[in-house]
Amino acid sequence: MSIDYLKMPENRVVITVAQTGALVTKKMNPNLPEQPDEIALSAYDCFNEGAAVVHIHARDKDGANSGDPEVFRKIHEKIRAKCDLILQDSTGGGANLSVEQRTGCIEACPEMASLNMGTLVRTLGENAGTPFMNTRLDIENFVRRMNQFGVKPEMEIYNLSMLQEIRILIEKGLLTPPYNVNLIVGMAYQGALEGNHMYLTTYLQYLPGNAYFNTLGVGKLQLTLGVMGMILGGNVRVGMEDNLYYRKGELAKSNAHLVARMVRIARELGKEPCTPEEARKLFGLKSLSNKAK
Amino acid sequence: MSIDYLKMPENRVVITVAQTGALVTKKMNPNLPEQPDEIALSAYDCFNEGAAVVHIHARDKDGANSGDPEVFRKIHEKIRAKCDLILQDSTGGGANLSVEQRTGCIEACPEMASLNMGTLVRTLGENAGTPFMNTRLDIENFVRRMNQFGVKPEMEIYNLSMLQEIRILIEKGLLTPPYNVNLIVGMAYQGALEGNHMYLTTYLQYLPGNAYFNTLGVGKLQLTLGVMGMILGGNVRVGMEDNLYYRKGELAKSNAHLVARMVRIARELGKEPCTPEEARKLFGLKSLSNKAK
Amino acid sequence: MSIDYLKMPENRVVITVAQTGALVTKKMNPNLPEQPDEIALSAYDCFNEGAAVVHIHARDKDGANSGDPEVFRKIHEKIRAKCDLILQDSTGGGANLSVEQRTGCIEACPEMASLNMGTLVRTLGENAGTPFMNTRLDIENFVRRMNQFGVKPEMEIYNLSMLQEIRILIEKGLLTPPYNVNLIVGMAYQGALEGNHMYLTTYLQYLPGNAYFNTLGVGKLQLTLGVMGMILGGNVRVGMEDNLYYRKGELAKSNAHLVARMVRIARELGKEPCTPEEARKLFGLKSLSNKAK
Amino acid sequence: MSIDYLKMPENRVVITVAQTGALVTKKMNPNLPEQPDEIALSAYDCFNEGAAVVHIHARDKDGANSGDPEVFRKIHEKIRAKCDLILQDSTGGGANLSVEQRTGCIEACPEMASLNMGTLVRTLGENAGTPFMNTRLDIENFVRRMNQFGVKPEMEIYNLSMLQEIRILIEKGLLTPPYNVNLIVGMAYQGALEGNHMYLTTYLQYLPGNAYFNTLGVGKLQLTLGVMGMILGGNVRVGMEDNLYYRKGELAKSNAHLVARMVRIARELGKEPCTPEEARKLFGLKSLSNKAK
Repeated sequence: MSIDYLKMPENRVVITVAQTGALVTKKMNPNLPEQPDEIALSAYDCFNEGAAVVHIHARDKDGANSGDPEVFRKIHEKIRAKCDLILQDSTGGGANLSVEQRTGCIEACPEMASLNMGTLVRTLGENAGTPFMNTRLDIENFVRRMNQFGVKPEMEIYNLSMLQEIRILIEKGLLTPPYNVNLIVGMAYQGALEGNHMYLTTYLQYLPGNAYFNTLGVGKLQLTLGVMGMILGGNVRVGMEDNLYYRKGELAKSNAHLVARMVRIARELGKEPCTPEEARKLFGLKSLSNKAK
Repeated sequence: MSIDYLKMPENRVVITVAQTGALVTKKMNPNLPEQPDEIALSAYDCFNEGAAVVHIHARDKDGANSGDPEVFRKIHEKIRAKCDLILQDSTGGGANLSVEQRTGCIEACPEMASLNMGTLVRTLGENAGTPFMNTRLDIENFVRRMNQFGVKPEMEIYNLSMLQEIRILIEKGLLTPPYNVNLIVGMAYQGALEGNHMYLTTYLQYLPGNAYFNTLGVGKLQLTLGVMGMILGGNVRVGMEDNLYYRKGELAKSNAHLVARMVRIARELGKEPCTPEEARKLFGLKSLSNKAK
Repeated sequence: MSIDYLKMPENRVVITVAQTGALVTKKMNPNLPEQPDEIALSAYDCFNEGAAVVHIHARDKDGANSGDPEVFRKIHEKIRAKCDLILQDSTGGGANLSVEQRTGCIEACPEMASLNMGTLVRTLGENAGTPFMNTRLDIENFVRRMNQFGVKPEMEIYNLSMLQEIRILIEKGLLTPPYNVNLIVGMAYQGALEGNHMYLTTYLQYLPGNAYFNTLGVGKLQLTLGVMGMILGGNVRVGMEDNLYYRKGELAKSNAHLVARMVRIARELGKEPCTPEEARKLFGLKSLSNKAK
Repeated sequence: MSIDYLKMPENRVVITVAQTGALVTKKMNPNLPEQPDEIALSAYDCFNEGAAVVHIHARDKDGANSGDPEVFRKIHEKIRAKCDLILQDSTGGGANLSVEQRTGCIEACPEMASLNMGTLVRTLGENAGTPFMNTRLDIENFVRRMNQFGVKPEMEIYNLSMLQEIRILIEKGLLTPPYNVNLIVGMAYQGALEGNHMYLTTYLQYLPGNAYFNTLGVGKLQLTLGVMGMILGGNVRVGMEDNLYYRKGELAKSNAHLVARMVRIARELGKEPCTPEEARKLFGLKSLSNKAK
């Protein structure tokens, strides 16, 4: 078959946990970890269940989104004190942060950072109708800054056209293979594909070569799109950022609760979750043991 | 979305078990049930694990494929003595049976029977290079005979072109909706699609309306294609006919062993296996309780 | 086949000509018609070559984009004085117009108006990086206003996710079938699919039922995507708004020049261009003869 | 985009003419060339209209299909006496020829020969229900014989599963890139995809790399599928073997008649037909001028 994305080894999968997010609150689910200690503790539980990557959002003391590198640094340290999870910071920020503020986390030197590959329009709450701007110039600036700090981008794809932005970055020489691409289905933005599992295979038809893909289904699709992604040779992101429920009408008790289920299914499918060091090797990240030297 | 096949209710799945087949033998896996008592006992175990349909092949005393209606009747009776599984006989037969012999089971009045929707060429063993003939006329004859005996066809699709045969039968007025279509990937015939999960979504693009689909992956794809099928709104067939192994290098202990795993995964995905009576209702089969009256 | 968009009668095609646009200027191609007299004269030539619909942008005396209903009215009158082309006004406007100004043309009561189905970001010229806002609320306001004035929307789709906006409008009861959908490939916005013919068939997989599609390829794709669209049962838009060249290195002499070529190819393919009245009938627009009464 | 088949240079297309076939007769269209002189004369007309390849079937004096190498040699000589068209013989033969007889033409040393990539079942006429056998072993024997005689195979693909046969041959080291693949839609065999333009893009999703594709639509699809194929970067086959009509109800006057229309459309699309020598270079065939030395 000519469709030529990078497939994971058949018996392996990398699980990313997105614990906190920017749009959800403790009011929606009181188990949401927001403060550095909560985040680190929860991350450690997820690590123990099989997660290899932790996707991090920072909040200030009041729970508002924060781009403060100091908060990110604190979270990194607290997680690192417990385990060797791959640290991946969000540059998505939140509606209250400027593009400049959203780059703050890069200075905290995570191993990876999310890179939003296009402009979307919010559809929910008080910010409905306002754009979440990520122009081509913004994207380029983000990735240049990541390159400067040795941070690997995970490219967040919400819509079919965003895949061509990857090619533009490749042509500008700004990306190093293998690429990490997060295929998102069901995010409630205008300009993002709605919840339909078929979109995953449509994405894959146009995914550039040399790319590992990660699958991110929002809400109830987190589970089923993630499993479909594993089956098609991809990795999976779970967590309360994208899905507050364990099942219909039942809030998730914890992020680890969601990780554990995905890992159980992965094992039923004959796939063992990668350790962080195994994932680093596949993604071309520096080994932590080498780094420490 | 315009792709308009019938989806199962989101929290339900029909599990079919194909226990015996025509190409596998006790030499390949000693746990294969071949004789009526073995088949009925194993079927009951599968029923207890969550199967709703049993796909039946008959063998003679020596284990050779048989089209003898008496053997099918015996199997039906022995299964029915234990449970209300939907009885689905195979008209595929085996390389040693004529087309006429393959229709024998229909006289045994199963509730459903398989209908092979095209001609294939065997590629393995001593029969390699010989055709498994199912011409348009054969297909029409099979379905007319099924209609005569009140047997519902499950249409076996091994290749993209076979979907158009469904339309031809519909246009001739030979089928009653909803249609039962079995989408097969990875069968080792020339003329059958090889093992690639993407073919499932390709099939779905061309599946006629008013059709429930079932997913049949051969060998190791039985597990992963089946799970992908459930996620996309379909049903699943498992069993030793299509897959002798539980995992790489480990033979399946029993058909129930394979059913049980698929049911565990279905439940993790929030799907409860349909009982035979629930499946009868969805597929438009007569209720057994009514039938008994 | 289950993909169920409305196909044109096999021997018919509706040709729309987009003569003026908002982004191109007489400097780029001196043959661009900008003023009402130029537009009407050119439209009449296009009508004579086989166009059935004229897509209209208005400019002020200096050639800047204008939303002034008076200018639209003048253009309508001058075209109507010559022929019965379907009058379709653009609500896309241009970077210098507010959303409010973009609705101006609706008051001029065209038969159809374009409805941009999502937010894009400009990538060229001095406005690069600025959003072309069409939020869900904007879209709804546009369509409500069109309904109020008896104007039928042609929905402009630049990206896969925009097809779901159609469904949202249908669910709100704001659209009357058959729907007119313009599938755009190659527009130089961020958030629009780049120039790849395969995207046309991807769009068609997700196009809602009851929709006629029109094909709009930008630049050199105008020709080839348009022909592919006709072959797949769609209609075609040509004209200098989307493509200033007749072929590589050779500016189009006129809009009629581009229409004539598409009509020649249509006829080679056995398709006769619809007259405006034939197109009105297919699209559910009022006949002009009836209207006049 | 990851779909990676070989595309023709944008301004070029190779036209193959299939003049005679095995299933059509002078009764169906009296302009069908059957005898060597007729075939050569007609081929020369097609060459003059822009064809680069002639696909050849041989008939005996009575018009019955023949595998006699002498007849093929005679046809080759007569064509070569007039022009340098690429000589491509059919190994499909006809229902009256054995597999052995079908290989006869290879001894006549054409430059290319067709290689049917799977088993089909005839559906029309007195042979309806009989298989057109091309087992894996047959295919391998055909290609080995072609390799022995320096003949390049054009692989005839009638159904999605047949694309995997290409891979099997590649893995056995029996093919030399670039590969020539003929994507067929609408042939009236059981086991061949029916007339639906969407199948062309489905094929392309699974076409192996390093392959040029040719498009063959049967009947009225010859025209439209061919044009769609050119647009997607492929080549085209036209001719009375696959289509006896110029348009509905109007028999083709000649093969050149059909070639000429396709060339007119190609030129409207900015594509100039390749000369035979240009096509030889693209396909890796020996130049005729070199060969002659």
